[in-house]
Amino acid sequence: MAGQDDHPVLRDMPVGIEATGMRREFDSMGEVEVPADRYWGAQTQRSLQHFSIGRDRMPVELYRAYGVVKKACALVNREIGGLPGWKADAIIRAADEAIDGKLDAHFPLFVWQTGSGTQSNMNINEVLSNRAIQLLGGELGSQKPIGPNDDVNKSQSSNDSFPAAMHVATVELIDSRLLPELDRLAACIERKAEGWMGVVKTGRTHLQDAVPLSVGQEWSGWAAQLRAAQKEIERSREGLYELALGGTAVGTGLNAPKGFSEQVAKQIAALTGKPFVTAPNKFMAQGSLDAMVRASAALRGLAVALMKIANDMRWLASGPRCGLGELKLPDNEPGSSIMPGKVNPTQCEAIVMIAIQVIGEDNTVAFAGSQGNFELNAMRPIIINNVLHGATILADGMEKFRTYSVEGTELNRDAIDASIGRSLMLVTALAPHIGYQNAAHIAEDAAATGDTLRDAALRSGKIDADTFDRIVVPADMIGHGVAGA
Amino acid sequence: MAGQDDHPVLRDMPVGIEATGMRREFDSMGEVEVPADRYWGAQTQRSLQHFSIGRDRMPVELYRAYGVVKKACALVNREIGGLPGWKADAIIRAADEAIDGKLDAHFPLFVWQTGSGTQSNMNINEVLSNRAIQLLGGELGSQKPIGPNDDVNKSQSSNDSFPAAMHVATVELIDSRLLPELDRLAACIERKAEGWMGVVKTGRTHLQDAVPLSVGQEWSGWAAQLRAAQKEIERSREGLYELALGGTAVGTGLNAPKGFSEQVAKQIAALTGKPFVTAPNKFMAQGSLDAMVRASAALRGLAVALMKIANDMRWLASGPRCGLGELKLPDNEPGSSIMPGKVNPTQCEAIVMIAIQVIGEDNTVAFAGSQGNFELNAMRPIIINNVLHGATILADGMEKFRTYSVEGTELNRDAIDASIGRSLMLVTALAPHIGYQNAAHIAEDAAATGDTLRDAALRSGKIDADTFDRIVVPADMIGHGVAGA
Amino acid sequence: MAGQDDHPVLRDMPVGIEATGMRREFDSMGEVEVPADRYWGAQTQRSLQHFSIGRDRMPVELYRAYGVVKKACALVNREIGGLPGWKADAIIRAADEAIDGKLDAHFPLFVWQTGSGTQSNMNINEVLSNRAIQLLGGELGSQKPIGPNDDVNKSQSSNDSFPAAMHVATVELIDSRLLPELDRLAACIERKAEGWMGVVKTGRTHLQDAVPLSVGQEWSGWAAQLRAAQKEIERSREGLYELALGGTAVGTGLNAPKGFSEQVAKQIAALTGKPFVTAPNKFMAQGSLDAMVRASAALRGLAVALMKIANDMRWLASGPRCGLGELKLPDNEPGSSIMPGKVNPTQCEAIVMIAIQVIGEDNTVAFAGSQGNFELNAMRPIIINNVLHGATILADGMEKFRTYSVEGTELNRDAIDASIGRSLMLVTALAPHIGYQNAAHIAEDAAATGDTLRDAALRSGKIDADTFDRIVVPADMIGHGVAGA
Amino acid sequence: MAGQDDHPVLRDMPVGIEATGMRREFDSMGEVEVPADRYWGAQTQRSLQHFSIGRDRMPVELYRAYGVVKKACALVNREIGGLPGWKADAIIRAADEAIDGKLDAHFPLFVWQTGSGTQSNMNINEVLSNRAIQLLGGELGSQKPIGPNDDVNKSQSSNDSFPAAMHVATVELIDSRLLPELDRLAACIERKAEGWMGVVKTGRTHLQDAVPLSVGQEWSGWAAQLRAAQKEIERSREGLYELALGGTAVGTGLNAPKGFSEQVAKQIAALTGKPFVTAPNKFMAQGSLDAMVRASAALRGLAVALMKIANDMRWLASGPRCGLGELKLPDNEPGSSIMPGKVNPTQCEAIVMIAIQVIGEDNTVAFAGSQGNFELNAMRPIIINNVLHGATILADGMEKFRTYSVEGTELNRDAIDASIGRSLMLVTALAPHIGYQNAAHIAEDAAATGDTLRDAALRSGKIDADTFDRIVVPADMIGHGVAGA
Repeated sequence: MAGQDDHPVLRDMPVGIEATGMRREFDSMGEVEVPADRYWGAQTQRSLQHFSIGRDRMPVELYRAYGVVKKACALVNREIGGLPGWKADAIIRAADEAIDGKLDAHFPLFVWQTGSGTQSNMNINEVLSNRAIQLLGGELGSQKPIGPNDDVNKSQSSNDSFPAAMHVATVELIDSRLLPELDRLAACIERKAEGWMGVVKTGRTHLQDAVPLSVGQEWSGWAAQLRAAQKEIERSREGLYELALGGTAVGTGLNAPKGFSEQVAKQIAALTGKPFVTAPNKFMAQGSLDAMVRASAALRGLAVALMKIANDMRWLASGPRCGLGELKLPDNEPGSSIMPGKVNPTQCEAIVMIAIQVIGEDNTVAFAGSQGNFELNAMRPIIINNVLHGATILADGMEKFRTYSVEGTELNRDAIDASIGRSLMLVTALAPHIGYQNAAHIAEDAAATGDTLRDAALRSGKIDADTFDRIVVPADMIGHGVAGA
Repeated sequence: MAGQDDHPVLRDMPVGIEATGMRREFDSMGEVEVPADRYWGAQTQRSLQHFSIGRDRMPVELYRAYGVVKKACALVNREIGGLPGWKADAIIRAADEAIDGKLDAHFPLFVWQTGSGTQSNMNINEVLSNRAIQLLGGELGSQKPIGPNDDVNKSQSSNDSFPAAMHVATVELIDSRLLPELDRLAACIERKAEGWMGVVKTGRTHLQDAVPLSVGQEWSGWAAQLRAAQKEIERSREGLYELALGGTAVGTGLNAPKGFSEQVAKQIAALTGKPFVTAPNKFMAQGSLDAMVRASAALRGLAVALMKIANDMRWLASGPRCGLGELKLPDNEPGSSIMPGKVNPTQCEAIVMIAIQVIGEDNTVAFAGSQGNFELNAMRPIIINNVLHGATILADGMEKFRTYSVEGTELNRDAIDASIGRSLMLVTALAPHIGYQNAAHIAEDAAATGDTLRDAALRSGKIDADTFDRIVVPADMIGHGVAGA
Repeated sequence: MAGQDDHPVLRDMPVGIEATGMRREFDSMGEVEVPADRYWGAQTQRSLQHFSIGRDRMPVELYRAYGVVKKACALVNREIGGLPGWKADAIIRAADEAIDGKLDAHFPLFVWQTGSGTQSNMNINEVLSNRAIQLLGGELGSQKPIGPNDDVNKSQSSNDSFPAAMHVATVELIDSRLLPELDRLAACIERKAEGWMGVVKTGRTHLQDAVPLSVGQEWSGWAAQLRAAQKEIERSREGLYELALGGTAVGTGLNAPKGFSEQVAKQIAALTGKPFVTAPNKFMAQGSLDAMVRASAALRGLAVALMKIANDMRWLASGPRCGLGELKLPDNEPGSSIMPGKVNPTQCEAIVMIAIQVIGEDNTVAFAGSQGNFELNAMRPIIINNVLHGATILADGMEKFRTYSVEGTELNRDAIDASIGRSLMLVTALAPHIGYQNAAHIAEDAAATGDTLRDAALRSGKIDADTFDRIVVPADMIGHGVAGA
Repeated sequence: MAGQDDHPVLRDMPVGIEATGMRREFDSMGEVEVPADRYWGAQTQRSLQHFSIGRDRMPVELYRAYGVVKKACALVNREIGGLPGWKADAIIRAADEAIDGKLDAHFPLFVWQTGSGTQSNMNINEVLSNRAIQLLGGELGSQKPIGPNDDVNKSQSSNDSFPAAMHVATVELIDSRLLPELDRLAACIERKAEGWMGVVKTGRTHLQDAVPLSVGQEWSGWAAQLRAAQKEIERSREGLYELALGGTAVGTGLNAPKGFSEQVAKQIAALTGKPFVTAPNKFMAQGSLDAMVRASAALRGLAVALMKIANDMRWLASGPRCGLGELKLPDNEPGSSIMPGKVNPTQCEAIVMIAIQVIGEDNTVAFAGSQGNFELNAMRPIIINNVLHGATILADGMEKFRTYSVEGTELNRDAIDASIGRSLMLVTALAPHIGYQNAAHIAEDAAATGDTLRDAALRSGKIDADTFDRIVVPADMIGHGVAGA
């Protein structure tokens, strides 16, 4: 079927191939049979055969981002004459479907494949090629009139397009899922902190009783950790905004027209609404994955903060009767198959495990990041898989943690109040008045005798009752706000 | 429906619930609606709601092993009167279905859940309970006549049964998948080594030319690395053979009858054909996951060896014309979307990435292993998930690596032979005759002038041509066998 | 000896105690004997006894930074009346000596001590106390007129002063050693890149021959990696500029006067010439070490980049006759005890090892960073020791690497030129003209027959000799500059 | 000076060179000046110049082990005629001095050097050469009559001797320091466990109150962890017993006489009293460091166990008044510079930091272990340094931990007893009698109302007072011994 300009016309038809059995596809090495209801071609099928390892599939977010990359390239090629308009339009239509997730079922490849991600690039090239062929009324597998290499991959290499897709996918996930959930969790903790800013409690350092602070101050510290982690993640996008596209095979831009780098980056910026730019040095952009390593480190920073927060929360909630017992976490589910009525801090535990997983995955990313050689870091699948995985479980984990634990957390005021009066470390307030050594001897005396601090203090003769009662007032010992003295 | 002994009769009916919509289930906290076509109950549903984090589902191998645990407990309970025979039989029947994988679709939980694995234990308790109820003609969700806690979980806690299932699952995967693939890969390399034991090639240390060895010797070293890794993995099962069952909630065995530990371990040994025993100290068995950490280290040992081997292979195959070019790996697929005719060492790259992933996951396991508190290490889901994942990708990866790369690898004799004659390090054979310093000056002279070693040697006056030709014979420099001098 | 204002006069006397044997010192727990020629007191001595573990001493850079902290606090205390001027002056004098390294021999403590660093804080408190006492003509060990707790530690806790000293020490080391060496190395590589921007060589991806690029382009990628790492390290100082001082024991500022936080930060900024400020949230500043974790990640980023660069360099220098042989590294030393005349890329190897060490230490830092509890992260000694160690070996390593390897590296033009002509991947330039598949078949034919690419291309009938010779020109295939097409 | 057999006579003279200024030494690259009072030669001096990186010196234990290697080689060479007896004797005498630590000051090299350890091998070759020359009355630096390469290094390469020294050093340190300290700590904990086997306390899982166990049972779990770690470390020596010696440069044994491998291994076994053998495959022994990676994993296993134990101890000792407060650790030192009378679990903190350091160093070792190429893993210095460091701080740390914390730990019986009665989880004992769900409702009721478990149980109507009092007896709930039910 030919259009008026003597070329095929783009038709409207839903995604899907009405066929059963197998279809012949070919690549430079020969013919391969593929499932007839799938858009993919020979190279995807070869990869499926050679690399069915475990259950780790290349994450779907990557292909959606790759759709953006392919669309942007087609847009530029249309503009500069690299592709005739009708070819570009067909590719763009198919790419839009990839972006919308309509082609997800046609991206079956495993993570453990070629280190450049070429097989995933060819997967999307083949799928967009066949889908465009279908839209143009051609024969699937013919590579005509839209070839996977010569048209969909026009002016590109896996070596520049795959890292570009990695960056787009990572930024998209950070922006759409991670940062919003992080912000919501931080805001939730901030609200709690404000509400409890006046509730005085026992401070603890080295797990041992220390001078008092307020519950709100303690929570403010957690929120501040999250805000700092958020800032770092936001910043880590800067390196990700730089795209390798235009470097083609080794960074020189061979077979891409001059200006392609900048134009395609502009298109991606326009398509995503994010400040993507072309990488100033393509040899770094393709020979390393350093920006991904840095983004991973930012995720790790969040994991480190979350681990501290979740650990604090579950310890403060420990008990209910034989632990610290200051916090009451929501009872979400029975905690034990054998101990009736037991409830456990399971959301905190999930966060702790997620944090450990992310710290480990980040270590994996750094190791892989160090293993580049010459014009390529061939550790791309492992890196993108770990980074997207980490961002996902952090985002989902924070959502659950907030919804099912933090928001519903309440104070056990009885326990908090009872504890504050017992702490011997209130003696610290006396030190400026009677000196550190005298104060120490009072505390040591109280500890040895089991007496109250007040009794021991008065017995020491270093201080009188009125002064003691005036100075040793927990509520006066927490300062003002969160910035210290 | 009641049998002749006044209890329900076990019926034959296929797995599956013919129902749509939702079904009410309950636990101690109240009622919950679950999908009517699923066997799971209230606690599984609560977990699904509270912990849908990422895409990481608890691995199916764990539930199959848990089936073994549940079956063994029911067998012992039947024997000692902990459960009436008909109850035990119903549980055993359901457990067999879990073991056979017929209930896989009923174990939907995520990895990021309670750190004890209680939710997965309750998942299988609920599924076996409902399946047994169904087999006995009862009402799903009634917990009668087979309750998830009181019957399926009889004399057990998550705290002792989950780590037992972890150990069983890990040993099973190691034995059924990992060790056979490891053996096959090692054997394949050994065959290659034998075949090439006489092919002399340039040795390389520090990446620099060194004295010769044979191709077979080089390959023998890789095989030896794999055999040592294999031995270590085999050994690491010793700790895994020790089962926590019988410790119940905190290791004391509360609510389990005396002797339960040993009997259930015997049953598991009988069911699996593997030398499982009861752990001599249940407080360690439940408070730590040290045996899992050690098993993980053994996997890592394999990863470290594989990384070296795969790196060596791809470097030796580098080129084909501008690299070392000694090996020819099979051409499995086109390697580049832009560079026509390019072929890459993709199987090696997959192995390298798998190795890095496993090293990272092992680090995660160690971190998690260190985070136990008191009577429980609540890091079980993360640990079992990482260990089973690592074992799986190692096994699958080795299978693909062997099948699609190692077996088809051939030598490029031209390159090997050409190289051996060029190496200046053949001078080493002269050192015992003319001394290290004289030999060094000959090599330095050849390097500076670009002459052959022979020319430089004769020019030095330290050796005559006949002696040189007698001593400097690469084929005589490779010793005998693989054990050195 | 009293001054005219009825207080002791500060005397000029060199550092050192003319005494032998032991001296009695005391703390709140009682008396302890210390070496008479040392300024330290009871608590330092207790720590020496209880924590002599390995050979890891707390790094000297920490104490010099602690000198800055102590001096700044004394300056503020003098200004606001927290200490009488003569006391403050004595402390300031002693602190200046600590800053200048004159008291280094009096800071003997091990890294593996209390997690808060209290023992090191008391070490400097005791040393400055005794040194000030000495300068004022008092009796060593009397804690009069300058007490370690009541005067030197005035308005401070270990909990706020130690992390402040960590930040100051880290920034100082980064600024004085790491960044200058990083800049010098990057500049050196940039100079090399510029000089070789026109030298065409074989590109390599997946270790396999790829399309050409220039030597200068390749080197430019390395430089760009270093510049990005530099930018990240510079940025990571932002978190370090925030100081915990003023939070005292738990972040509330107890026993410190209002305004102390800001004034002491200003003093430290003035003393160091760096933009230190008070941390906006002291509970985060003391309960976490997240800013240190992030600084560590920035060091790791450099390590990842360096590893790639050093690996590339040693591979490109591999041979000299049986490897890639494109680079000639300086011959610094004989490389082998047995192979005469062997020279190895030892500087590259040292860098690779340093990179691995730093990546591992960063992992340690992240782990430790996650282990805070409540108002204190008691992992300070391990974190500061690893971070300062990593920064030191990176700085020193880069200096040696640049001086003894990079600067003297030369090209082996013969090898580079010979290689470029052999590469089959020059076929890529034909793809836009004859299509990817045709080009692939030409390359495959050449690979199979061993023919030149030109012969195979002409034989294919897809291209004529003139066109081939016009298109397949390596020098025309490297694009312009480093930003790709 | 010549002996009666016309060769120099070995003289008795103390270690040391009476000279000042510099001395000329040479190697194949030319002359170098070295400090006149040092035995080292040109290559050591070159390394000092090129690799003064940080403060990390190659550990002294390595050189002492290298002394054993050099002695064993000289013994074999004497026996088989590889060296004349008088030469061998001189080398042996000097090697004995190295073994005894008398030459420590002459091994100054840094860790960050050539990856093969060649410079350290040459260091000891040069030192033994010059010391032997001195003992024979020759001229230092003349390399006559004992040359560092031709005589001391006879039949050796760094490539086989350095890993042999690594193995000897590691086994020695494990046997002499690590295992004894591990045994002492485990025994100490076992003694405590026995003494407290009848003291009932609240169990804790998920940090939450659980059913009771005895203090002794809890401690027994810690001891069992240590014993398992001990067993693993003992086992990990098996790989270390295999020595690379006899492989020389690349594993083929070039320039070593047949049988050398086995004889030298026998000599080392005899000298050390440990079952060293020759490695069956020298290509693995030199191309990998897998046995070291496995030994490192065994150290890590201990670290993981220690971290759990130390964490448990400090949490159980938390308080003293606002924490769990079950244990009383010895008061070793004042804990705070600002809070008088505060005491912290500092020994536990040191152990936790040591554990984290060792886990991180093990990760470094695995990474480095994966980076071998061809006939050499050039990551030896980093691996030996990390492994010896880890073993040292573990050994020293355990010694201090035991001496200053574990041995003096006492129970706070009041806190333990008070706690046990409060726990709602005693309800578990009722479950077999009234069913899990009924028991759960009782516990939930008690939790909600704040009542005692007994009150809630009786109120439920599910159980009468007599039965409750008979069943809910904590002392009856801890089972018998440590092996569970």
